[in-house]
Amino acid sequence: MIDKQDIADWFKGLQDRICNSLEELDGKSKFQQDLWERPGGGGGRTRILSNGDVIEKGGVNFSAVFGKTPDKIKEAMNLPESDFFATGVSIVLHPKNPFVPIIHMNVRYFEMSDSTWWFGGGIDLTPHYIEDFEAALFHRELKMACDKHDPTYYPEFKKWADDYFYIKHRKETRGIGGIFFDHLNHKRGKSKEELFDFVKEIGDTFAPIYTKLAKRKKNTVFGEKEKQWQLLRRGRYVEFNLVYDRGTKFGLDTDGRVESILMSLPETAGWTYNYQAEQGSEEEKTLEMLKNTREWTS
Amino acid sequence: MIDKQDIADWFKGLQDRICNSLEELDGKSKFQQDLWERPGGGGGRTRILSNGDVIEKGGVNFSAVFGKTPDKIKEAMNLPESDFFATGVSIVLHPKNPFVPIIHMNVRYFEMSDSTWWFGGGIDLTPHYIEDFEAALFHRELKMACDKHDPTYYPEFKKWADDYFYIKHRKETRGIGGIFFDHLNHKRGKSKEELFDFVKEIGDTFAPIYTKLAKRKKNTVFGEKEKQWQLLRRGRYVEFNLVYDRGTKFGLDTDGRVESILMSLPETAGWTYNYQAEQGSEEEKTLEMLKNTREWTS
Repeated sequence: MIDKQDIADWFKGLQDRICNSLEELDGKSKFQQDLWERPGGGGGRTRILSNGDVIEKGGVNFSAVFGKTPDKIKEAMNLPESDFFATGVSIVLHPKNPFVPIIHMNVRYFEMSDSTWWFGGGIDLTPHYIEDFEAALFHRELKMACDKHDPTYYPEFKKWADDYFYIKHRKETRGIGGIFFDHLNHKRGKSKEELFDFVKEIGDTFAPIYTKLAKRKKNTVFGEKEKQWQLLRRGRYVEFNLVYDRGTKFGLDTDGRVESILMSLPETAGWTYNYQAEQGSEEEKTLEMLKNTREWTS
Repeated sequence: MIDKQDIADWFKGLQDRICNSLEELDGKSKFQQDLWERPGGGGGRTRILSNGDVIEKGGVNFSAVFGKTPDKIKEAMNLPESDFFATGVSIVLHPKNPFVPIIHMNVRYFEMSDSTWWFGGGIDLTPHYIEDFEAALFHRELKMACDKHDPTYYPEFKKWADDYFYIKHRKETRGIGGIFFDHLNHKRGKSKEELFDFVKEIGDTFAPIYTKLAKRKKNTVFGEKEKQWQLLRRGRYVEFNLVYDRGTKFGLDTDGRVESILMSLPETAGWTYNYQAEQGSEEEKTLEMLKNTREWTS
């Protein structure tokens, strides 16, 4: 029977493997690690790669925290007085080249002292320039990973991502979505082992997918115009993360380690008042595509 | 007896006067105007100055909107089904030179169909580098403006600003504060005319103060290090506005004109993981000062 420590240990190993893969992809910079402790219990390993050849700023964080359930979570989830345990790996990569997409991945496990437990997570892609081929490739890989475990997962979790990664005030999706899932537990008719196997699959899918996507475009030539556009798209990423993202809110509300939480923000971002894309430009095409979600695997 | 239209008209004139003063200060760029209408009633004049010699990005917005009170406000303020009228001028200026401070000003008037009404507003300063002399000068000017109307205003509204412009998750003040006030109405033992006179005073204080502050430093020499620091301080400004600012939240929640609301965000901003200021540097001195509020006029 797997317990929370097994899961945390596996997540730790995943962090190691992913960091190795990303250093290999980048070829220049290495991850720097900060160990931190949470006053209420537990801690984490924050790893940041800066100023790489492929990755301008990337964070791969592991944490395992426990203690008295913070009031904000108790209220939000209508929980009784209790202890909690939470462990996970969170990743955001902001690439240097505007043709390489931003990516986000998270896998997490929660357990309460009343013995309820659940898994959550997801992977989603935010291209500065949306390319059909890339989006379809990305979604196909995710579908394949999901289908190995349950054919209902991909359609359900793809929709969940479409709903979640939406910048309401901009009426724009954050990117081309991916998969998002939460509260996976025995109520799904699966054992903890089966659900953990699925979460492992997703975790291990991350590095190969991003390596494939980044390698396709890391040497694509770009100029000042594309860098400017990247700044604006990163601005939208900042808006999503600070205004809507539940993980970020949860972290800031519960006095989490700010530098680890906000590693998701890019090294630089920009806001140009009332930016209008040139007619017929690639920027306009991307903006147009962000207005609606799409099926990428049918 | 003044009515809401008189107030809106005065705010419009204030916007004109401030834009003229700022164009004179800048000497290079001019404000560009966008007129907009609110689907539910009313509209505004958004004016943006970009890429100036002094101001890198600045917005001076006027709006007067009315209609059915949005649900979000009704809930937040525990109001019955009603109509509302709101008018105001909002300003955020992001200067080019890192030694010139960011400034924010807002004056506003609210009226409900049950005939309740109130004024709100404030001015606060966010220097990238805090200088005692500048901070004291700024607060002294605000105190003088307040004292003409009521000697209790400055101490009360200064504290309100200290409490409001606080970035909780960073345990940092946004800048050196200023004054902030809300819900000023007859319960203060003042007539609407008296309160409006005070709000006018604050509105008219803005341009002279900022002109004085900006002229002192607009030609101060700076280098790459100071520009980098400015990016980080702007990042904090973005964090405050997207995570805490009530005006921004209110705007986004009530489907306001996004480009007008988010004109407060800088042209560029940055986030460097776990930035540590050099010991004994000006950056460290400013970070240290942001840990606590201070009295600047005693």
